[in-house]
Amino acid sequence: LQRPRHQGMAKNTYMRWRLPLVCLLWEGAMIVLFGVFVRFGTEADAHWEEEKREMNLTSDIENDFYFRYPSFQDVHVMIFVGFGFLMTFLKRYGFGAVGFNFLLAAFGIQWALLMQGWFHSFKDGKILIGVENLINADFCVGSVCIAFGAILGKTSPIQLLVMTLFQVTLFSVNEYILLNLLHVKDAGGSMTIHTFGAYFGLTVTRILYRPNLEQSKDKQGSVYHSDLFAMIGTLYLWMYWPSFNSAISDHGDAQHRSAINTYCSLAACVLTTMAFSSMLQKKGKLDMVHIQNATLAGGVAVGTSAEMMLTPYGSLIVGSISGIVSTVGYVYFTPFLESRLHIQDTCGIHNLHAMPGLIGGIVGAITAAAATEEVYGKEGFIKAFDFAGVYQKRTPSVQGGFQAAGIVVSLLMALVGGAIVGGILKLPIWGDAAAENCFEDDVYWEVPEDEESDVYHMHNPDKPASP
Amino acid sequence: LQRPRHQGMAKNTYMRWRLPLVCLLWEGAMIVLFGVFVRFGTEADAHWEEEKREMNLTSDIENDFYFRYPSFQDVHVMIFVGFGFLMTFLKRYGFGAVGFNFLLAAFGIQWALLMQGWFHSFKDGKILIGVENLINADFCVGSVCIAFGAILGKTSPIQLLVMTLFQVTLFSVNEYILLNLLHVKDAGGSMTIHTFGAYFGLTVTRILYRPNLEQSKDKQGSVYHSDLFAMIGTLYLWMYWPSFNSAISDHGDAQHRSAINTYCSLAACVLTTMAFSSMLQKKGKLDMVHIQNATLAGGVAVGTSAEMMLTPYGSLIVGSISGIVSTVGYVYFTPFLESRLHIQDTCGIHNLHAMPGLIGGIVGAITAAAATEEVYGKEGFIKAFDFAGVYQKRTPSVQGGFQAAGIVVSLLMALVGGAIVGGILKLPIWGDAAAENCFEDDVYWEVPEDEESDVYHMHNPDKPASP
Amino acid sequence: LQRPRHQGMAKNTYMRWRLPLVCLLWEGAMIVLFGVFVRFGTEADAHWEEEKREMNLTSDIENDFYFRYPSFQDVHVMIFVGFGFLMTFLKRYGFGAVGFNFLLAAFGIQWALLMQGWFHSFKDGKILIGVENLINADFCVGSVCIAFGAILGKTSPIQLLVMTLFQVTLFSVNEYILLNLLHVKDAGGSMTIHTFGAYFGLTVTRILYRPNLEQSKDKQGSVYHSDLFAMIGTLYLWMYWPSFNSAISDHGDAQHRSAINTYCSLAACVLTTMAFSSMLQKKGKLDMVHIQNATLAGGVAVGTSAEMMLTPYGSLIVGSISGIVSTVGYVYFTPFLESRLHIQDTCGIHNLHAMPGLIGGIVGAITAAAATEEVYGKEGFIKAFDFAGVYQKRTPSVQGGFQAAGIVVSLLMALVGGAIVGGILKLPIWGDAAAENCFEDDVYWEVPEDEESDVYHMHNPDKPASP
Repeated sequence: LQRPRHQGMAKNTYMRWRLPLVCLLWEGAMIVLFGVFVRFGTEADAHWEEEKREMNLTSDIENDFYFRYPSFQDVHVMIFVGFGFLMTFLKRYGFGAVGFNFLLAAFGIQWALLMQGWFHSFKDGKILIGVENLINADFCVGSVCIAFGAILGKTSPIQLLVMTLFQVTLFSVNEYILLNLLHVKDAGGSMTIHTFGAYFGLTVTRILYRPNLEQSKDKQGSVYHSDLFAMIGTLYLWMYWPSFNSAISDHGDAQHRSAINTYCSLAACVLTTMAFSSMLQKKGKLDMVHIQNATLAGGVAVGTSAEMMLTPYGSLIVGSISGIVSTVGYVYFTPFLESRLHIQDTCGIHNLHAMPGLIGGIVGAITAAAATEEVYGKEGFIKAFDFAGVYQKRTPSVQGGFQAAGIVVSLLMALVGGAIVGGILKLPIWGDAAAENCFEDDVYWEVPEDEESDVYHMHNPDKPASP
Repeated sequence: LQRPRHQGMAKNTYMRWRLPLVCLLWEGAMIVLFGVFVRFGTEADAHWEEEKREMNLTSDIENDFYFRYPSFQDVHVMIFVGFGFLMTFLKRYGFGAVGFNFLLAAFGIQWALLMQGWFHSFKDGKILIGVENLINADFCVGSVCIAFGAILGKTSPIQLLVMTLFQVTLFSVNEYILLNLLHVKDAGGSMTIHTFGAYFGLTVTRILYRPNLEQSKDKQGSVYHSDLFAMIGTLYLWMYWPSFNSAISDHGDAQHRSAINTYCSLAACVLTTMAFSSMLQKKGKLDMVHIQNATLAGGVAVGTSAEMMLTPYGSLIVGSISGIVSTVGYVYFTPFLESRLHIQDTCGIHNLHAMPGLIGGIVGAITAAAATEEVYGKEGFIKAFDFAGVYQKRTPSVQGGFQAAGIVVSLLMALVGGAIVGGILKLPIWGDAAAENCFEDDVYWEVPEDEESDVYHMHNPDKPASP
Repeated sequence: LQRPRHQGMAKNTYMRWRLPLVCLLWEGAMIVLFGVFVRFGTEADAHWEEEKREMNLTSDIENDFYFRYPSFQDVHVMIFVGFGFLMTFLKRYGFGAVGFNFLLAAFGIQWALLMQGWFHSFKDGKILIGVENLINADFCVGSVCIAFGAILGKTSPIQLLVMTLFQVTLFSVNEYILLNLLHVKDAGGSMTIHTFGAYFGLTVTRILYRPNLEQSKDKQGSVYHSDLFAMIGTLYLWMYWPSFNSAISDHGDAQHRSAINTYCSLAACVLTTMAFSSMLQKKGKLDMVHIQNATLAGGVAVGTSAEMMLTPYGSLIVGSISGIVSTVGYVYFTPFLESRLHIQDTCGIHNLHAMPGLIGGIVGAITAAAATEEVYGKEGFIKAFDFAGVYQKRTPSVQGGFQAAGIVVSLLMALVGGAIVGGILKLPIWGDAAAENCFEDDVYWEVPEDEESDVYHMHNPDKPASP
């Protein structure tokens, strides 16, 4: 463990004081802010018995906990196991993928509880939280996990914590603009989570462009078992996506419908992904990169419209298209983005989140614009789009226009925000690794000796194998 | 990536145009048929508000979504992660195990929504779907995953898609005969899913018999880590089986009881499996094949009876027996089936699904025949067996007889259907691999270089290691 | 498979007759005892329809199944996948970790249903079980899984079954004393599960002290992929811990609150763990052992208080502290315990369960003592602490005292019980391995050949590689 490997590194990646400092500072701030602001909402507070009487509820089962907790847990798994393991496909960055995702998400959910709380759950000077807040915090962090995918392997844990701080903040502002000012529907977050998260991450990675990244090209691939680990992430994202898109929908039919639409879209997406993965490769073989990622595009692409009356066949169509677009993206766009636009996108989030996110926003706008009282029923129509109060007179086509505006706002917030945050992350104080040490756990992690030696042995023939 | 490996293959496994064609054709058909037939059921439709009033429901929590969605998600995990990872035990077929299972299941659930919909949810020319349909579609596909286990590693993805098309169709017909014509109870699918799926798969693999399969014998085993990946599949199947057997049971006590019976049966099964795994091996060591598979037989064997008053100790007995039968099967029957009957059963589905499925059918028949009003209560008795309408006069012993008939029908459907489908799959147009390339991901997948070389290096000493 | 490896073993680890005998004996006893005692509770019995009328319930959704089943499944995953995979970090003990955990837990839950049933669900000579009993059985087994962590790799499966038999018994007695005699609150089991389980396991491993364990030092570490497998366990424990701590809390606000407190505590714990993991290592690198374990301490440490009005910021504080204590424990205490006190703690349960369990007990005592009617509301106060019947006059400070007494009782039970059971396990009849064969699957498992040879090749250069 005392070998002098990496002594020759060009950059200072020594984390000993910097990482603890940032972690403890961030956590200390959370404690203080939670102490000042965060309290239990009425359904989680011990006064619930009295509340129940006031709200005329006859049973504890009416507590929102029972409507949303199973979905919450599925979303939780998507954030930590889904995103975490999806990114373990790199042969020597599994610890970083799972571990840094764990770190940034654990911080992000705390900060998101505060940020989203101030915007949406603030009452008499306190943020009142319940299970829906936990889901929303996980959602918000989902957009950070997406952005992480673009810079995977090229950033220090400190950079990730800094990015999380800023991105959660911007996410919450953007979400507020969309949901509250534009009165846009986006329960599964095609715009707020995917479009915003992906273009934010792509902008950051553009700013952090590393011209010599081919020095670590040999570590940018997968090995057999790392591809299987990644499939754990893929499948959990795929299976639980119906919960993701329905988690914060209205009780009853909306949650039910969101789950069905997402289930259908994802199923269709698998078939078109497999088709194009084989078709776009000379030898006609399937590529695990596509299976791991493009199969999920169907979930992204119905994120806005799943709770609307998209209908099952509409979902199949959207899912089919997004699988094709995403797979084509991996084959043609990713190399183009890297060579021409200098956007180095480790996980291909442009294909999995950016383009399908845009599709999702557009499909949502169209579906909203096409809504009629006949299809939704009179009450259902008002409930589905929340056309009450000041929005009582809004028509479907106007709603469609606002939905489209939501896409544009999300894009602008992502590009401007990403540029600023990218600039901050470019400062030479955060301890990121040199180009030749990217995609390498050994920089920030204690790595067990023996298997490591195998891989090194293979790729660095000039380096003597460890004893 | 351009190495000429496998140039000498006897068979044409080139997928480039065939696989995309089949995938896109299948998916296109789904879109058209969904467009014509599939709509949201009342509990997922935006008209739910009006429906609620008509049905006199006071709360959204009465939506079937909240009764069944958590179970649905567990079943979903069993199909995609459970079956998918269970089959990754092969050292070089992990991509095919997880990936092809993903492909066939994603197609199968769409086709099953249609087939089962026409039989069970057809109203005014439309199939009305809700969460129960999603569960049933997953169930139906479960039987295809089972059959896949018998032919794992020996078939092309096209063959799997063709098999799925036919098997889902036959499954739905068989299910209709059992549930609607014979009025049989089979909530956990001992007969409809396991017996049917397993004997169907065994017949198919018999028809596809490969006399020279020992040419790929070295790849039919596991390696240390592939056995651990398989345990992920095993444990998720084992843990979520109580959800599987209770997912479509009647609301209330029936769901509750199914979960308890299954929990008990599975717990007992683990102990007898461990006992016999050690006992049947000269050196007394435990065999991962048994632990990965036979421990699950207890879930299969209470599939029919779990929602009945089997009682916890009855479940322990059934679970104990099925663990023994299954383990003995792996040690003695599988080699016998292969050498004498030319049934090459890659995963041993005869031991995990066929025999325990038969046990399950028989236990169900006996439990039904032994039912009394005393044990069930007057109302409970009628509710449990749905002895209403035209079945008002059916007695427990008659019900037991019909249950037994259900086993026979399932068997016949499986054998006849499997023979026909096996014949179709034998046509030399589907791109299956030659015997020496079976159990080898490299045929249909882009496989990363380096780890591969290790394994090859070990088994094919005549082949030079890759550079 | 017929190589004479391990012929020279000093100890007889031959399991062929002993393991089957114990398994079948244990399971036979379960069947008999279940037959005599265990029946369905009213909510799982077919008489539920009548019961519903009597209890004036208007809907099946009021069945406890729907309040607790999702949490039950999460807990189930924690026990089998969580604990099982967490322990796969050892390079050559993955089968034993997952497999023996599977075996002992499958037996343990049956025995726990009986033991806890006699104490808590006994009515008219029968134990009436429902979903809450299943959760409690899993909880009880959780304490055995914890103890298993201390002796991992050093014990035979028979020893584990014997230990499980005794530990479940003692757990149930201790739980009865705490919950029924002391009227202590401990929904997440900081005292009953973690403190008891950990000190029990530590005492057992002290009694079983192996002076020559450094002979298998090379197998006590991890390899790259085994660390990733372990992270599956870690993340499932971490994600589902909110379900664990809320699973048996009162319906409504208490379940809701428990989940929120646990979510907060765990999030904070990740940041302090990362901080101290980096800080305590010269090179400032993160250590997977800490990330895999200490990140979970926050869940242990709010086990008692999560359902109380701990408040979110209180949870952050408790989580932060426990992450620090646990990480410091791994760096300083574990080596100390081993060298000075001869406590060989394979998984470091002292750091993950013992110390955080004590913190949890203390935090629970303080939170209870600090409770006021103002904070809880009049009804909420009585409901939260069950200050009814004979406990009507108990004050918060008295409750705090009893909570503290619960810690002491749990500790004593663990130390005395662990000493006795350790003594029993020391008998030379259970087939444990010699020191040089510890942490080695090959002793009790059929291990596939090839990857094995790699590892051996590396560590035992004097042993010829297998052909």
